Amino acid sequence: MKKAFLPFLLTLLLFPLRADEGMWPLSELHKLDLRSKGLQIDSQEIYNPQGVSLIDGIVQLGGCTGSFVSSEGLIVTNHHCAFGAVQAASSQEKDYVSDGFTATSRREEIPAKGYTVRITESYRDVSAQVLKAVKTGMSPLARTKAVEKRIKEIVADAEKKNPGKRAEVAEMFSGKSYVLFLYTYLKDLRLVYVPPRSIGEFAGEDDNWVWPRHTGDFSFLRAYVAPNGEAAEFSDKNIPYKPRKFLKVNPKGVEEGDFTFILGYPGRTYRHMGAAYLSYEEEVRMPTSAQLSESWIAQMEEMSSKNPEAALKLSSRIKGLANGSKNYRGKLAGLQRLGLVKKWREDEKRLQEFILASPERKRLYGSLLQDLENVYSEIRNQSDYTSTLDSLLRSSTLLSTALSLQEAAAERAKPDIERDGPYMDRNFPRLRAGLELSLKNVYLPAEETFLTERLIKAASLPSSQTIPALAPLGKDPDALKAFVSKVIRETRLKDPVFALKLLGQPPELLTKQRDPLLQLAGALYPTYKKLKETRQKQNGELDTLYAKFIDVRMEWMKRDFVPDANSTLRFTYGRIRGYSPRNAVTYEPLTTFAGVVEKTAEKPFYNTPAKAVELWKAKDFGPFASSKLKDIPVAMLYDMDTTGGNSGSPVLDAKGELVGINFDRAWEATVNDYAWSSLYSRSIAVDIRYVLWVTSRVGGANNLLEEMGVTGN
Amino acid sequence: MKKAFLPFLLTLLLFPLRADEGMWPLSELHKLDLRSKGLQIDSQEIYNPQGVSLIDGIVQLGGCTGSFVSSEGLIVTNHHCAFGAVQAASSQEKDYVSDGFTATSRREEIPAKGYTVRITESYRDVSAQVLKAVKTGMSPLARTKAVEKRIKEIVADAEKKNPGKRAEVAEMFSGKSYVLFLYTYLKDLRLVYVPPRSIGEFAGEDDNWVWPRHTGDFSFLRAYVAPNGEAAEFSDKNIPYKPRKFLKVNPKGVEEGDFTFILGYPGRTYRHMGAAYLSYEEEVRMPTSAQLSESWIAQMEEMSSKNPEAALKLSSRIKGLANGSKNYRGKLAGLQRLGLVKKWREDEKRLQEFILASPERKRLYGSLLQDLENVYSEIRNQSDYTSTLDSLLRSSTLLSTALSLQEAAAERAKPDIERDGPYMDRNFPRLRAGLELSLKNVYLPAEETFLTERLIKAASLPSSQTIPALAPLGKDPDALKAFVSKVIRETRLKDPVFALKLLGQPPELLTKQRDPLLQLAGALYPTYKKLKETRQKQNGELDTLYAKFIDVRMEWMKRDFVPDANSTLRFTYGRIRGYSPRNAVTYEPLTTFAGVVEKTAEKPFYNTPAKAVELWKAKDFGPFASSKLKDIPVAMLYDMDTTGGNSGSPVLDAKGELVGINFDRAWEATVNDYAWSSLYSRSIAVDIRYVLWVTSRVGGANNLLEEMGVTGN
Repeated sequence: MKKAFLPFLLTLLLFPLRADEGMWPLSELHKLDLRSKGLQIDSQEIYNPQGVSLIDGIVQLGGCTGSFVSSEGLIVTNHHCAFGAVQAASSQEKDYVSDGFTATSRREEIPAKGYTVRITESYRDVSAQVLKAVKTGMSPLARTKAVEKRIKEIVADAEKKNPGKRAEVAEMFSGKSYVLFLYTYLKDLRLVYVPPRSIGEFAGEDDNWVWPRHTGDFSFLRAYVAPNGEAAEFSDKNIPYKPRKFLKVNPKGVEEGDFTFILGYPGRTYRHMGAAYLSYEEEVRMPTSAQLSESWIAQMEEMSSKNPEAALKLSSRIKGLANGSKNYRGKLAGLQRLGLVKKWREDEKRLQEFILASPERKRLYGSLLQDLENVYSEIRNQSDYTSTLDSLLRSSTLLSTALSLQEAAAERAKPDIERDGPYMDRNFPRLRAGLELSLKNVYLPAEETFLTERLIKAASLPSSQTIPALAPLGKDPDALKAFVSKVIRETRLKDPVFALKLLGQPPELLTKQRDPLLQLAGALYPTYKKLKETRQKQNGELDTLYAKFIDVRMEWMKRDFVPDANSTLRFTYGRIRGYSPRNAVTYEPLTTFAGVVEKTAEKPFYNTPAKAVELWKAKDFGPFASSKLKDIPVAMLYDMDTTGGNSGSPVLDAKGELVGINFDRAWEATVNDYAWSSLYSRSIAVDIRYVLWVTSRVGGANNLLEEMGVTGN
Repeated sequence: MKKAFLPFLLTLLLFPLRADEGMWPLSELHKLDLRSKGLQIDSQEIYNPQGVSLIDGIVQLGGCTGSFVSSEGLIVTNHHCAFGAVQAASSQEKDYVSDGFTATSRREEIPAKGYTVRITESYRDVSAQVLKAVKTGMSPLARTKAVEKRIKEIVADAEKKNPGKRAEVAEMFSGKSYVLFLYTYLKDLRLVYVPPRSIGEFAGEDDNWVWPRHTGDFSFLRAYVAPNGEAAEFSDKNIPYKPRKFLKVNPKGVEEGDFTFILGYPGRTYRHMGAAYLSYEEEVRMPTSAQLSESWIAQMEEMSSKNPEAALKLSSRIKGLANGSKNYRGKLAGLQRLGLVKKWREDEKRLQEFILASPERKRLYGSLLQDLENVYSEIRNQSDYTSTLDSLLRSSTLLSTALSLQEAAAERAKPDIERDGPYMDRNFPRLRAGLELSLKNVYLPAEETFLTERLIKAASLPSSQTIPALAPLGKDPDALKAFVSKVIRETRLKDPVFALKLLGQPPELLTKQRDPLLQLAGALYPTYKKLKETRQKQNGELDTLYAKFIDVRMEWMKRDFVPDANSTLRFTYGRIRGYSPRNAVTYEPLTTFAGVVEKTAEKPFYNTPAKAVELWKAKDFGPFASSKLKDIPVAMLYDMDTTGGNSGSPVLDAKGELVGINFDRAWEATVNDYAWSSLYSRSIAVDIRYVLWVTSRVGGANNLLEEMGVTGN
């Protein structure tokens, strides 16, 4: 951390003493009395705004977290976080996905295309600055736009003052508190060691969100910078990045009951939302979304089973949808199990009594809960319409690309500061890279099938919700099918070079192309723009309401809250701990390689390398066996508080040494995003002992162990 | 036990000291040193050929086991064992299946139609008598027939000498040892207390063969006899049967680690078979059978979902097939997990070395293993043909009835002693009752679909295996469909009265009916008769070979074996004990009502009576909670050795008091029929505390607790 920006974050939040739960902002660490919980180092060693501490060894990597583990920029993160780079580096001849990859020297390291590493330099509270933009009497839409604009100004100002850095403003509590983060992005990342997929993704989708787990979900990368130490694009001249801090590896690992903590970038939780939100999620949004995903997955699996090209192009889309829909199914089961909506509703009933008990509170918050209810009623009433529009775009990469081109044409015509975020100069290259990537995997039969299906769905909307662009197409399924077939056949957007050339071109130039898909997107654009504004209006209402909701709940419960996760750096602590998923069943908190052997089979994702099995049978565990389990521990379970984005986060022991890499949650813990439970909230890491055993024994990369200061024998 | 028949069973078998495993014949009890294992009573109290002991309180009930629990003939067994009687006693108005049944007085007890209770009076070894019928040089077919005939003679003789008793000869070791059992059958059984299906069959097929379990699988019946104490058909004048012995109930139950034993009638195990048998089972018979069952189940579920009549008539057929195919799937998984065929093959390889190491053994057994292999090769080669013929009969109740009529016509023409068992006078009424029962649930669309499917399959057999009766029908699927449709439409066997009237009538009378199905069955009969003889021939070969196989293995392993289960009374002991089904998962050995609540849902088999849930929430446990678990224990798990037929067996504690009713095995223990494993072999009982809590609290049958000498408060 630079000392210039002294974080005085969230001074208004005095955190409660609820043990275990919580994705704590770093500024609150000193209030947690971690020594009494089991930490054996000073909390200053974890977070020290005045000097170097462990958090300086933590980075964001894609949507994941990573840790520096050597002075030479070596980073450990999850296999699934590095997967895109491994896939991009692979070819028919060099199948690093299946076989894994070992760089036996620095020269052999392969660029991780499109990957960056984000290092947090500093942060500070900018709530007052942001909220100054909000004037009494503003409409909700105007409010949202004003806040967005003010944030853009703060960001632009910060980036101007800090050349080479990137600024971002994170909302900590909806409509209430904002923090400005300053980041460095390293752009030259390289693959160093990646285990074979049969280890790194062992048991594949079957075991996703599942404990007991036997996945060696880790990979090593290395960050490089220009010889002068500054962030730079890939170059032969670049040198390994010297992190301010790297994590020490503890090859002895931890056992059941041991204290542990995690530093990372949890993505998003929803614990401070209202019951109206949660019941909408449970009854409408998640089931609708999961159902559609499951139907598309089934159709894509059918296509894939018949055609290798389909299998290749659709695999990552299937994986993404499956990950999401399985998570939703887990959450829906968890909401049922915990009866959470009912519980929240009962809480709010008591909150309402508390509100009505004082005239002042009644004046300020009397209609608050009803107002929240009303916004979600509106959202619920529109949900068939909005989900139809959303899924129409999701159905076809070509159509969503065409819409992006239309939106870019409109947005890029405005002054930079007035553009929608993704179209601002500072973000536009990322948008382009995203489009380029998505166009690689277009599989026309899927595009055609799903787009037709969604147009038929759109045609079934009630007449009051007719989408003007689609009205002329009529409602006849066969006619719609023929229309889509013609559009897909004729559009030139199938050619990624052509499509990307049009990105950022003015509307006239798009019109001139006479491309039927561009025309369809052009006709749809006003509808999507209007939908976006409806949402901005609703968000404006919700921001105001949630700001009050937090205030009155804090007053009621006489304590402050930990803000919901928002991809900013957080700390969570707990213990290595199993749980009982159901009556008479106990899950132990450590799996072992015996379990890998148990599951091993001759099918994709289950075909453990014979070498690993042989080594295990020969009990060649090196120093990496658990003395308690007499076996190599593979994965570990703990009651720390994590969510998506914590993937790749380091699990650290009482001395702050690395003992695992977090990568998932247990099935019963998917509902964690709404409510933490000491009974069910369990997250999953790959055990450092497995990381070291696989890296040295299966990968033969003893050089990496040496670099991390670990003896492999 | 009557003292007249002193059992001198199996003196040739001196049992080894392998702990835990084993379904021990009673005569071996005194060799087991049960005191040192935890038994706190004398083994004479369990089994005493000179007087009354616990085994006198155990009965066979249908294919299950039951126990007397009062001096007034009260019997406790499984809900699924009494289910047929409950179903038969139910009507639209009085749905005892769903609602359960409580007789608040003896007068209200309902006859359990078709049920009998079998009491073992005595047994003795008759191996020498049986094997005297076998002459050197006999063909295998002649051997089988000679043994069968000799057994019939022994049975006829015993029944003549013991009027009112029923004799049966059980084969203990294939082709080697035989025991004559003398039984009394009580014929007036009545339903006393049956819990609602949502308790007695809680979680239905989902939880079948599964731990953790939450099923209250118990029911109470009462046996009645004539006023003079003799077995008699139902009559108002009958009085409760006074058993020689009844089991004392221990309402305190047992906890983890406690010593327990089981007395019961395990049906069939296959631990002394060869690897050739097991690989045939694993590779051919079980997968083929499971696949066909699963396909039929899917089709019947489809029919049931569309039609309530189908649902009603097909439910027990679906249940039976599902139970069997799930068991096979469990066994197949277990065989894979244990690598059992490979293990047995390796054993036999070493056995062969042992055989060849001595000239005398080489002479006696040199070709034994190859001979066994050859018989199973033959069976394997014929398996497509035989399974086609078997499944053709299984496909249609009407066709199998027609074939029974044809077979009855042929068999009943012979002298009684020469008839096939089921057609002998002593068994014929049971055959009639069976046909009557099966004809009740004929659902014509299923008959037609499956019969057509199987005829199409039969038509695809190679020309060398053409079934003469079917040849004229050709191979055209549409023609076969039309044929079946016509046959089913025209046959009068759909009328059960008509069908049963023909049972036992001479062939000419059947011919005279000109019934197309009877004609088809008549044409098929010679093929089935030939198949039966082929099997008799193979069994003759196998009996001889297995007799030698046992001999040489005993010689090799220098110990004697416990004979495979064969529906005779056995003893097994062990402890209340959980297990680890897979890495990092532990199953606790007692489930509780908390788990019932956890699983309860608004769907069939899951809708726990509200009353039970309320009582539980109010912690109205009476004296029946486990002091350790602070809850009502529902089911218990133990490492005793059981198989099908042990359903309803009493689980007894160290003092010989009743603490549970055995009803199932865990999934990993289905493979138990081939090999017992201390890691996986676990069986399941309903806990006596749950039985008593449900009976008194849900059923209100406090009178039964009183009758059993238990205080419910």
